Amino acid sequence: MRFTSQTSSDGVTEQFFHLDEIPGVLWTPEDARGTRPLILLGHGGGQHKTAPGNVSRARRYAAGGFAVVAIDAPHHGDRPQDDEFGRIAAGLRAGLAAGEDPGALVAGMHGCLAPRAVADWQAVLTAVQRLDQVGVGPVGYCGMSMGCGLGLPLIAAEPRIRAAVLGLLGVHGLAEDAARITVPVRFLVQWDDQLVPRDQSLALFDALASTEKTLHANPGGHGDVPLFEVDSSRRFFARHLG
Amino acid sequence: MRFTSQTSSDGVTEQFFHLDEIPGVLWTPEDARGTRPLILLGHGGGQHKTAPGNVSRARRYAAGGFAVVAIDAPHHGDRPQDDEFGRIAAGLRAGLAAGEDPGALVAGMHGCLAPRAVADWQAVLTAVQRLDQVGVGPVGYCGMSMGCGLGLPLIAAEPRIRAAVLGLLGVHGLAEDAARITVPVRFLVQWDDQLVPRDQSLALFDALASTEKTLHANPGGHGDVPLFEVDSSRRFFARHLG
Repeated sequence: MRFTSQTSSDGVTEQFFHLDEIPGVLWTPEDARGTRPLILLGHGGGQHKTAPGNVSRARRYAAGGFAVVAIDAPHHGDRPQDDEFGRIAAGLRAGLAAGEDPGALVAGMHGCLAPRAVADWQAVLTAVQRLDQVGVGPVGYCGMSMGCGLGLPLIAAEPRIRAAVLGLLGVHGLAEDAARITVPVRFLVQWDDQLVPRDQSLALFDALASTEKTLHANPGGHGDVPLFEVDSSRRFFARHLG
Repeated sequence: MRFTSQTSSDGVTEQFFHLDEIPGVLWTPEDARGTRPLILLGHGGGQHKTAPGNVSRARRYAAGGFAVVAIDAPHHGDRPQDDEFGRIAAGLRAGLAAGEDPGALVAGMHGCLAPRAVADWQAVLTAVQRLDQVGVGPVGYCGMSMGCGLGLPLIAAEPRIRAAVLGLLGVHGLAEDAARITVPVRFLVQWDDQLVPRDQSLALFDALASTEKTLHANPGGHGDVPLFEVDSSRRFFARHLG
């Protein structure tokens, strides 16, 4: 794990790193020492590890005492896009333009990325927990939209993750992974989501095997999750990982 | 307004009162002085002002600095049941036993009670805000199930109410009142509610005209709202009335 920069502001330290070919960012409380809960923060499709919503959320969590790590998903952000992925992405755009079922198209894209994304997260989790200011504490995962689509197979495969904030995605291609998830889940739905039909969102919430799961639905489109849900999710993680 | 008893424990003062023929309870922080936000707390059908869930919620709100007032709904608790109400209640039970639509039956019952309940709440609100330890501060309403069914016409009619926690009820008979409500609403749904079909709950949430409204859905039956929703609703009221 190779750190490439470190800055601190407003009580939060931000460190960019590479783990092999995976570019990432770690946020911790300034002058943090010793073990603390860690949140893995997945980004949305076409976005990257330092998308504004990600950074704002990460800094709020870190200001609350958490360590937070984000990485670029395969073929996103600072990672190379190979030709095969370019063809898949072009196929997705063409399918959407042609009026094909967005749920199926998006699920196909996520299915291509998931095996690599799961392996990346597992390696990053192990590496980050070796740092003195993180340690082997309880772990949560937070990801919406593509971050949910790549997070579900990760959480299903990874017993170290003990709570998750997910949402903004439908059930397409994810029912089996959801049925293997038993940790507490907060699941966000945008009531007027132009990308995810409401019934497919509700079906994904239904499919989670967790006995403690709460759906939060707010008016507005895919990108309109209200800011108070970020603070609410921080309290959710504090309750389950604190 | 005639107070009949006063006790204090765990930092909360509980005072029973009568306002004309309306029996009620007021909870305030012990030794409270001056104006504070007030929560009107409606109880469920067949229950009463000091049902255990009501008292527990009221004490948590009051410990957080709120004044909380609960009254017995018409024909409930310490209030007389007249013969007409007895016939209506028997008709509801018979209809449920005969497999009639519970939404329509329950809406009929709530429709009978609502005009009296709205007038009672308006009188109690005015009287309670004259007390030194309450004052004319911001007001919220909290009620589930029948407390929601009687609360919606109240909130639609009462501009002093600025935020509400509602839920555990379907849209039957309430769409017009819901369309007149514009204050922030937290709306609770029990995902496996044996009394309220899920689609009718979602339709009532849909019908609210509020631009800020959040639906929280949790697994379990009508009576299984998790305790963390009580603390979450206290923060909701603090955000909007604090």
